[in-house]
Amino acid sequence: MEKDNKIEPRTISGFMELLPNEQVLFNQMKIKIEQSYERFGFLPLDTPVLELSEILLAKAGGETEKQIYRFTKGDTDMSMRFDLTVPLAKYVAQNYEQLQFPFRRYQIAKVYRGERPQKGRFREFYQADIDIIGDGELSILNDAEIPSIIYTTFKELDFGEFTIRINNRKILNGLFKSLNLVALSADIMRTIDKIEKIGVDKVKEILLDFGIASNEVSKILNFISINGSNDEKLLFLKNLNIKDEMFEKGVLELESVVKNIRLFGVPESNFMIDLTIARGLDYYTGTIYETFLNDCPQLGSVCSGGRYDNLAEYYTDKPLPGVGISIGLTRLFYQLNELNLVKVGKSSIADILILSTMEDVTQCFGVAQEFRNAGINTEVYMDNKKMKAKIKYADKLNIPFIGIIGEEEQKNKNITIKNLATGEQQVLSVQDAINLLKSLK
Amino acid sequence: MEKDNKIEPRTISGFMELLPNEQVLFNQMKIKIEQSYERFGFLPLDTPVLELSEILLAKAGGETEKQIYRFTKGDTDMSMRFDLTVPLAKYVAQNYEQLQFPFRRYQIAKVYRGERPQKGRFREFYQADIDIIGDGELSILNDAEIPSIIYTTFKELDFGEFTIRINNRKILNGLFKSLNLVALSADIMRTIDKIEKIGVDKVKEILLDFGIASNEVSKILNFISINGSNDEKLLFLKNLNIKDEMFEKGVLELESVVKNIRLFGVPESNFMIDLTIARGLDYYTGTIYETFLNDCPQLGSVCSGGRYDNLAEYYTDKPLPGVGISIGLTRLFYQLNELNLVKVGKSSIADILILSTMEDVTQCFGVAQEFRNAGINTEVYMDNKKMKAKIKYADKLNIPFIGIIGEEEQKNKNITIKNLATGEQQVLSVQDAINLLKSLK
Repeated sequence: MEKDNKIEPRTISGFMELLPNEQVLFNQMKIKIEQSYERFGFLPLDTPVLELSEILLAKAGGETEKQIYRFTKGDTDMSMRFDLTVPLAKYVAQNYEQLQFPFRRYQIAKVYRGERPQKGRFREFYQADIDIIGDGELSILNDAEIPSIIYTTFKELDFGEFTIRINNRKILNGLFKSLNLVALSADIMRTIDKIEKIGVDKVKEILLDFGIASNEVSKILNFISINGSNDEKLLFLKNLNIKDEMFEKGVLELESVVKNIRLFGVPESNFMIDLTIARGLDYYTGTIYETFLNDCPQLGSVCSGGRYDNLAEYYTDKPLPGVGISIGLTRLFYQLNELNLVKVGKSSIADILILSTMEDVTQCFGVAQEFRNAGINTEVYMDNKKMKAKIKYADKLNIPFIGIIGEEEQKNKNITIKNLATGEQQVLSVQDAINLLKSLK
Repeated sequence: MEKDNKIEPRTISGFMELLPNEQVLFNQMKIKIEQSYERFGFLPLDTPVLELSEILLAKAGGETEKQIYRFTKGDTDMSMRFDLTVPLAKYVAQNYEQLQFPFRRYQIAKVYRGERPQKGRFREFYQADIDIIGDGELSILNDAEIPSIIYTTFKELDFGEFTIRINNRKILNGLFKSLNLVALSADIMRTIDKIEKIGVDKVKEILLDFGIASNEVSKILNFISINGSNDEKLLFLKNLNIKDEMFEKGVLELESVVKNIRLFGVPESNFMIDLTIARGLDYYTGTIYETFLNDCPQLGSVCSGGRYDNLAEYYTDKPLPGVGISIGLTRLFYQLNELNLVKVGKSSIADILILSTMEDVTQCFGVAQEFRNAGINTEVYMDNKKMKAKIKYADKLNIPFIGIIGEEEQKNKNITIKNLATGEQQVLSVQDAINLLKSLK
């Protein structure tokens, strides 16, 4: 290749590629979620990015088929995963005999959707999923544990106050059955889902346009406008006296979930029954969740999910009910970063940059190794640059401390530790310096 | 879709997909490498899996083009990355102005090669790379730091004793120049690279077949059979009195690397000069590394790399010399797992499974949350199963402890902690139980 005929280095649009300082923040967020999921004993899974197209598209249609990255290599028609749920369904069906149930797994990984890129939308993005899969049955108690995981995770992430909204699809479906509106239930739910965006009046107008009788529209609006505490809402639901088996089951489930969420230690201020959330149409069958950051409602739900009856019906006859949630990590990071809301524990990888005031920097090597052996992330600046350039390097990488070794320090087996934020510096023995940095970790 | 018309759940061949217990081991290995890389201050990078084909294939040809997963979506000709070096080159050229040099990055991520699958070869596999990129120049001291990173990493991985073999391409190239064999150097090096496999006699035969004069073949064989300690080898190289500038520079570089490896604290038994390693043909220009597990030479090199003059010549005029290494994680895990050599720190995610002897398990929830708040990974068994089934579940997941709450325990606010490996059990207050588990972490 001709050296003067360069190819312009660029990244495909819709693919997030961060600068190192931002990547450090992103990774901290990812690790916090991972640790929180593991805190509840979820097992890690790492399924392939590529799967057979017939597997991934067993159910899909519409948007999914249009957006999927699909190609043939040799004789194999393969696609890049567009979510982590379909690969999980395949995995559980495939490894059913070797798994222990309830099967609790998390996966934090990239998924791919070849949609038209726009601000804040990505073609490659991380999902952070947990699911609990039962073999034939799965206790409703699991539905109560999920909000406690959301709570622990978002407390850890420290993005400010948040509210987990909870509903149960059986309640909505039972209500529509009792009103003889089952045929319209999908349309009604889609409309209700928009109530925060378009307002009550507009919802009413649309429902009337569907041909629903005015008194039934009133019942629906009355129903979804239920106000008050969680217990008041539950009482209201019971007092509606709707004689429908599904409705009644939904109310009992919701009551159980609310009661047990409390036992899991989630404060009342962090969750609420919200009868307006519906979450799509045909997948969820019971409890559903959405999570909103109180100070950033414009982000929409940042963690959603619910209960489903059958994870893997396209691959196995075994009934595998489950409950799960997903955090769209890439989008969340992008939005919070735009708002300057990503909280920083530690904004550098190295805890200290060791540098020499002498031309020969090799006397830093052994000292650096002592720091590393003590668990301190340590870098040695090896280029023969001016002191100012070395400090600028540490500064740009947000490294909090520099350790200076000059002739004096070398002679006395000391190191000068300088805190770059405060400018404070002190001459310490290597061991004292190590102890100082360890005490600050 | 018809429920009785199931799609067989399967994974594309050549794609590693682990059962949870193995995945836990794999992740531990991955995390150890990551922590070791961060211990040296390397910055994380997470480039996209998909890049423009013109970027990825700027240099490639031959095998790479045949194996790459390439497709067009909309107007975009894109490919899945086949290594982490080309995306790094793109990244550094693209973000040159915003990066600090030397730019030290690691990336542990999956790469894709659509080759014919065979035992122990994968189409999707993790590479764990570090590279140090200089802006125009990069001190030879960096070449000495790399083996100290390999040393720290493989000590941490605990796969038994290992040896880092080191050579310098300038020495080989200089030797061939001094023998007027530059035109044949690629062929000679490829032959020398095989010496461990095919033996000296076969190498001699092949070299003679190339038409190299017998006395020159002797010189080459004499050269590569140099024996003794690292210092003896360096002395031998100097005493060869080869008057070639490149050769002399190579010997000086190698001498400097050996001297400074020692200052980084790498024991003499873990590294050696090996004049027979050559590592490919046209990429590396100075120091080269290979790493062998002493007890598993059949695995070949498990961590290789070297110094190169120009990382990103296809995308920028800026000279960007670098030095780096790569661990082929997926293959290494597969091979060691076959040999039962993957060492286990902790083989479960949950530290304890809390279960109830009563029908109502909800009294476990608050206790579990106390364990979690103390940093202990805790799972509650919620299904209404027999005690035996609950213990079997813990056993299958390698969870080391169970915590039993029955009527007695509930009344006295205690928990019975049972060590599943020893069978030992004791009744403790919740706080004492937490302290016990924390002391064992």
